[in-house]
Amino acid sequence: MAQLIADRRDVDFVLHEQMEAAELAKSDKFAEFDKKTIDLIVTEARNLAIKEILPTQKPGDEGCRFENGQVLVPECFHKVFKVYNEGEWLAMTDDPEWGGQGMPKVISLAANEYFHGANASFMLYQSLSHGAAKLVETYGTKEQKNLYLKKMYAGKWSGTMLLTEPEAGSDVGALTTSAKKNADGTYSITGSKIFISGGEQDMVENIIHPVLARIEGAPEGTRGISLFLVPKYRVKPDGSLGEFNDVVCTGIEEKMGLHGNATCSLTLGGKGQCIGTLLGEENKGMSAMFTMMNEARQFVGLEGFAVSTAAYMHALNYARERIQSRDLADPKGGPVSIIHHPDVRRQLLIMKAYVEGMRSLIYYTGRCWDLASLAASDAERAHYTGLIEVLTPIVKGYITDKALEVTSHGVQIYGGYGYTKEYPVEQLMRDCRIFMIYEGTNGIQAMDLLGRKLGMNKGKTFLDYLGEIRKQIDAAKEIPMTAALAGNMEKVFNRLAETAIQLGKTAMSDKVKFAYAFAHPFLESLGDLTMAWMLLWRAAIAAPKLAKLAGGTDPAAIKAKVESNKEASFYDGQLQTARFFINSMLPITLGRLEAIHNMDGAAVEMLDAAFGG
Amino acid sequence: MAQLIADRRDVDFVLHEQMEAAELAKSDKFAEFDKKTIDLIVTEARNLAIKEILPTQKPGDEGCRFENGQVLVPECFHKVFKVYNEGEWLAMTDDPEWGGQGMPKVISLAANEYFHGANASFMLYQSLSHGAAKLVETYGTKEQKNLYLKKMYAGKWSGTMLLTEPEAGSDVGALTTSAKKNADGTYSITGSKIFISGGEQDMVENIIHPVLARIEGAPEGTRGISLFLVPKYRVKPDGSLGEFNDVVCTGIEEKMGLHGNATCSLTLGGKGQCIGTLLGEENKGMSAMFTMMNEARQFVGLEGFAVSTAAYMHALNYARERIQSRDLADPKGGPVSIIHHPDVRRQLLIMKAYVEGMRSLIYYTGRCWDLASLAASDAERAHYTGLIEVLTPIVKGYITDKALEVTSHGVQIYGGYGYTKEYPVEQLMRDCRIFMIYEGTNGIQAMDLLGRKLGMNKGKTFLDYLGEIRKQIDAAKEIPMTAALAGNMEKVFNRLAETAIQLGKTAMSDKVKFAYAFAHPFLESLGDLTMAWMLLWRAAIAAPKLAKLAGGTDPAAIKAKVESNKEASFYDGQLQTARFFINSMLPITLGRLEAIHNMDGAAVEMLDAAFGG
Repeated sequence: MAQLIADRRDVDFVLHEQMEAAELAKSDKFAEFDKKTIDLIVTEARNLAIKEILPTQKPGDEGCRFENGQVLVPECFHKVFKVYNEGEWLAMTDDPEWGGQGMPKVISLAANEYFHGANASFMLYQSLSHGAAKLVETYGTKEQKNLYLKKMYAGKWSGTMLLTEPEAGSDVGALTTSAKKNADGTYSITGSKIFISGGEQDMVENIIHPVLARIEGAPEGTRGISLFLVPKYRVKPDGSLGEFNDVVCTGIEEKMGLHGNATCSLTLGGKGQCIGTLLGEENKGMSAMFTMMNEARQFVGLEGFAVSTAAYMHALNYARERIQSRDLADPKGGPVSIIHHPDVRRQLLIMKAYVEGMRSLIYYTGRCWDLASLAASDAERAHYTGLIEVLTPIVKGYITDKALEVTSHGVQIYGGYGYTKEYPVEQLMRDCRIFMIYEGTNGIQAMDLLGRKLGMNKGKTFLDYLGEIRKQIDAAKEIPMTAALAGNMEKVFNRLAETAIQLGKTAMSDKVKFAYAFAHPFLESLGDLTMAWMLLWRAAIAAPKLAKLAGGTDPAAIKAKVESNKEASFYDGQLQTARFFINSMLPITLGRLEAIHNMDGAAVEMLDAAFGG
Repeated sequence: MAQLIADRRDVDFVLHEQMEAAELAKSDKFAEFDKKTIDLIVTEARNLAIKEILPTQKPGDEGCRFENGQVLVPECFHKVFKVYNEGEWLAMTDDPEWGGQGMPKVISLAANEYFHGANASFMLYQSLSHGAAKLVETYGTKEQKNLYLKKMYAGKWSGTMLLTEPEAGSDVGALTTSAKKNADGTYSITGSKIFISGGEQDMVENIIHPVLARIEGAPEGTRGISLFLVPKYRVKPDGSLGEFNDVVCTGIEEKMGLHGNATCSLTLGGKGQCIGTLLGEENKGMSAMFTMMNEARQFVGLEGFAVSTAAYMHALNYARERIQSRDLADPKGGPVSIIHHPDVRRQLLIMKAYVEGMRSLIYYTGRCWDLASLAASDAERAHYTGLIEVLTPIVKGYITDKALEVTSHGVQIYGGYGYTKEYPVEQLMRDCRIFMIYEGTNGIQAMDLLGRKLGMNKGKTFLDYLGEIRKQIDAAKEIPMTAALAGNMEKVFNRLAETAIQLGKTAMSDKVKFAYAFAHPFLESLGDLTMAWMLLWRAAIAAPKLAKLAGGTDPAAIKAKVESNKEASFYDGQLQTARFFINSMLPITLGRLEAIHNMDGAAVEMLDAAFGG
């Protein structure tokens, strides 16, 4: 039976052999999450994803309906939403005090990979609810937490994020939604928000909107923005629902994809009846928002990855089953399955390399969260949170860029069928295109990397990151089967380190725009190097295990074992994937680093008029 | 007023300054197509495209309906179809004897750029009609031509191409549709075809299907395939319509995009009543098909290009109008239009470079057709047809790959709006994804380049192609403003020439699959080099004109002129675009050529099982 959504063997490989997730159980905090429990959780998540969520993916593509101010989600979402909540999957990693499971993040990511890969539209409702609840947990008063938190983590009430306005997209500081303080300490909110995922829907009895707004008289720009908690229905002190809170959905977007998730326009206080409470401190809304942004951006990266792994599983299964044309090496033979054709293999291997590199990268980021939460010292915690700072734009920006490539290869491998709705790959490609845009466009991720992360702690944070990569290169050099790969990767590593210095210096000179015109190519290059890191790490784990299975490193013995033993072929797949990526993809990265090094200023120096039109 | 679909100044530049289209009027054949006439044709085409065709693009995205075996195209197509036919636009380049305009191909491409950019779905009906008519013109008997040709070129009857079957997609030789000869010399056709664009529609009174089928007893594979002309309604000797010919549409595909064009499944002879006539010779169907394939593939490249130029015009206009965030170089200033942001400029310049390179490449291919048709000797004709052979996989494969990138940048520049149906870019991206697949997937284009074109005429054809590039490099070296660019490009040229030899040799060795695993990267690299060729050529034309306008090459004088004079800024835009592409994009190509040179065999040597799943 072919795997769906994700390759369970690879999920287990990353969890146990690469990230050693069960080791976390040595801590008091995660003591109950031993290997057996981890495996049970993943199995349960996988079952739920495949049996319940996946069947809603295609019907969900029919979209939400907007009728008389109400948003009706795809009918099939209702049942699975209930099942998902009964399983208490929303608050896997959260504090048991508020109904969470207290699970290590790295484990939750394996579960979420299956969930998001099964239906990204459906899961987006959950991600946003989780993000909103986390805001309440982090910044809420005791009263706010008591009123909202358990119901949100239980999925009874959903959550959103009201940030974007028509004239304030990426430039959040330009927003105009206003808050006027009332005598009782609450605020009357007035304004319009757009692009609100799940801003209105019919699966829950209440929707809790964290809203960015400006208190009357507050400073201009981002320094005058505060965060408010605005429920769709007011909440009485006993937790029961009061009257409608004047949050009106005025329409939903028609989009390229992600049709099952309603993208709403909301008007707050159109009748002057929208009441919110301050969440956190006055004028500190942006910093609260940014605290959550890391989680949100990592979620978007996860979405891109999950859709990619689903596309890879589909394309791989199809390539094994679809019979078409003869083998190039056997032109007189009969037609063969298309996985025999070199260009199909090339595409599958690109997909595999990215998907597996993404999986390791995402789980690694989760592991950093977990280790930060267990850190014995401030320095140790700072080390892991620093890594997360650098990882975030890569996880969000690089993964979602590559997700489009991976899903597009998925379409291509299906040929003409891939373009039709008969097969799932075209939907995956349409769904994932938004991930490059929301929670900060990938251009903004690139600016974040260059402008904030490169110079953070006087460059120490970034050097720490490079140090982790360097360690892996050194380790792989000691292993005969990976030594050559490590050497090839090292050239790109060195070039990237030089380029980072050059780029950072330029960004602080009067040629600042020259540097920023290469911010995205630099993000892409660092992402490539990070993929190579993850894949080399995998290969370095696989090599000795393969040698052990084969009783040594004799090539003939290894070949025989690989052909006859499933575990051996899995480990060999790790070595081949690293080999492919480092030898056939990284040279392209080196070329791109050369282009950055040239730092030609055409894009900056060209006059607007010279663009034509 | 912003330009729509295409930048008219650039269209004129390529037609007149780069391709010197009016020079063709020195020949008897094209004597009437002087500069004034060319400009009139382009203006008329542009007006038709913008005023009549473009308004059908968005409503056309609602799709065709399939009701009771009938296909209803979007209602708005009917009127514009009539107008298009009244303008006699279908047969621009064809023989006046059959109703054609006898126009040089290079001019028709400018018109078609506007048409296809205005609505690719609508125009696909026309392209296929033209291709089918051309088959009749080339292979038809006098009787067939008299019966069908004028009506087809006039758009009264449409045409299709019945090639693909469920088990015979890329492997055409596996098809099973059969033809049984009748006593009167006609054939009874039986079979099922899928993915037939415009296979059924309600804009015309008859549809003429060229059908690939196997005559009973014919050899297996491609050598036993014949071509037949199968009308939807039989045609009486006087040209009037007879009875229904048992060509039944059984359904249309639900697709990612191109919704206005019906993709049909057809059953032929389900009731034994489908009659066709042989087109060309028995068992020579494939070679007839391949003759037309070059035109069809060039049309697909044109489609990809046309959608790209439309996306660029939209994104450029939006970037100039959309105000968001401050200028990086003026952090205390007010918000500026997003064209000031380096990452937006980078994306716009990528779009511009590809779009303008594509335009030159496509018009150049048209010019080669024209010059081949005027050739004074066999050798001269062979030179131009040889160039076309090499150009075809680049036009089809490279342009359509890059069209997806260009349209995706278009979506990105619009931010969240780009993902919504409120703006046209998301449709352009969805529409263009199929171009990478149909008329031979881009993987097949890459195989065509490596397997057929590289070794054609013992390599002379390909060397001829490289020779044309070399000439341009040498010429640009003589011009001070382009000499350095030419030098930078030369490095990539030399590396590509070496790689081609290496790849060609490997393809003929027992490592054939190693070579084919790099066929697509090689196509991409040759495409990049070809873009650079076109852009350097443009720059070499622009440089002296800019110097002339500025009264010399003094940088300050040029800068002043560029800032104050529209023509000067256009020419400067040519130089900057070449500079950007050669200095910031071609280094990536060099990296890819390095990867090909490595020729790592991971993709070939990996076992199927090691792909996982």
